[in-house]
Amino acid sequence: MADPEGTDTDVDTDAGAASAPPVAPDDPDLRLADLEDRWRRAVADLDNLRKRAAREIEFVRDSERAQAASVFLPVVDGLEDAVTYARGQSAGLAEGMQAIREQAVAALERLGYPRIDGVGVPFDPRIHEVVSVVGRGDRPPRTVVDVARLGFGTPDRLLRAAEVVVTSAEE
Amino acid sequence: MADPEGTDTDVDTDAGAASAPPVAPDDPDLRLADLEDRWRRAVADLDNLRKRAAREIEFVRDSERAQAASVFLPVVDGLEDAVTYARGQSAGLAEGMQAIREQAVAALERLGYPRIDGVGVPFDPRIHEVVSVVGRGDRPPRTVVDVARLGFGTPDRLLRAAEVVVTSAEE
Repeated sequence: MADPEGTDTDVDTDAGAASAPPVAPDDPDLRLADLEDRWRRAVADLDNLRKRAAREIEFVRDSERAQAASVFLPVVDGLEDAVTYARGQSAGLAEGMQAIREQAVAALERLGYPRIDGVGVPFDPRIHEVVSVVGRGDRPPRTVVDVARLGFGTPDRLLRAAEVVVTSAEE
Repeated sequence: MADPEGTDTDVDTDAGAASAPPVAPDDPDLRLADLEDRWRRAVADLDNLRKRAAREIEFVRDSERAQAASVFLPVVDGLEDAVTYARGQSAGLAEGMQAIREQAVAALERLGYPRIDGVGVPFDPRIHEVVSVVGRGDRPPRTVVDVARLGFGTPDRLLRAAEVVVTSAEE
C-alpha cells in the first residue's frame, strides 16, 4: 500500500529542505497543487477503505457462519442415522433422538440455513443433487420423490445441497 | 470520527473569502497551511480507519463464531442426556450416541472452544461455576471433584463455564 506520509529518506539532504514536505518544490503554486493532489487522494483512499471494510466485514460474517455450520453437519448426519437405528431398538429412545436431531436442524436454521427436504417439488439444480433417477409413473417429470440426505440453505446461500431421488425427464 | 474536510468556522472572516474554496484564503501561505492540515488529518483518519476496520473484523469473526457455537450447545447437552439414557437401554446404541456426542464436542473444539471437563484441578472462577460444595476429605481445598455440566472455551475466550462440584475452602 502507498505510504501517504512519504518516506524519510529525502529528509536529510540539506538543512533548508529538511523541514519541507517530501515532494514539495519551492514554487508555492506547485506545492499547493501537490498538496491538493495528496489531500484528494487521501480522501479518496479513505472512502475506498470505508467501502472495502464494510464489504469485508459482511464477507467475514458470512464465511464464519458457514464454516461454523458446516462443522456441525456430520453431527446432524450422525443423528439422522441414530434415529433410524434407534427405531428398531427402543421407541422411547428413538423419540428422544428425534428431538435432538430436530434441535440440531433448528440450530442450522437459526444460523440462516433452512432445511431442504421438500418432496413433490420440482428438481432445482441450485439446491438439489441427484443421487438416483426413477421412472415417472403418474408423476410429473423431474420431480423430487425422495430426499436421501438433508440439504441446508437457500439457492443464494447454500450450505449443502440435498441429495435427492427424482423422476426422469422423459417417459 | 474527525472530519477530513475540516470545519467551516475559520472561513467567514471577510467578503473576499466567500467565493474561494471554504478554507482557502487568498494568501498562498495560509492556503498551503490549510491544505497541509487537511491532508494530515485525512492521512490520520485513514490510519485510524484501517486499525478500526481490522479490530472490527476480528470482533465480527469472534462473535459470529461464538453465536454459532452457542446455538449448538443445547444439542451437545441433549446428546449428553441421551448417552446416559441409552446406557440403560442398549449398549450398541449408547456407544453410537457417545460417538455422535464426541463429534459434537469436537466440533465446538474446532471452533476454538475446547471442552472444560478436568477433575482434580484447582477451582478457577474464570472457567468454573460452582453448583455444589462438598467436604474436603483427604483432597486439597477448592478442588474440582466432579463436572455436572461440560463447559467450553478458555479463560480468555469462554463459551460456557463448566458447572462443577468443588471441595470446601476450609476444613
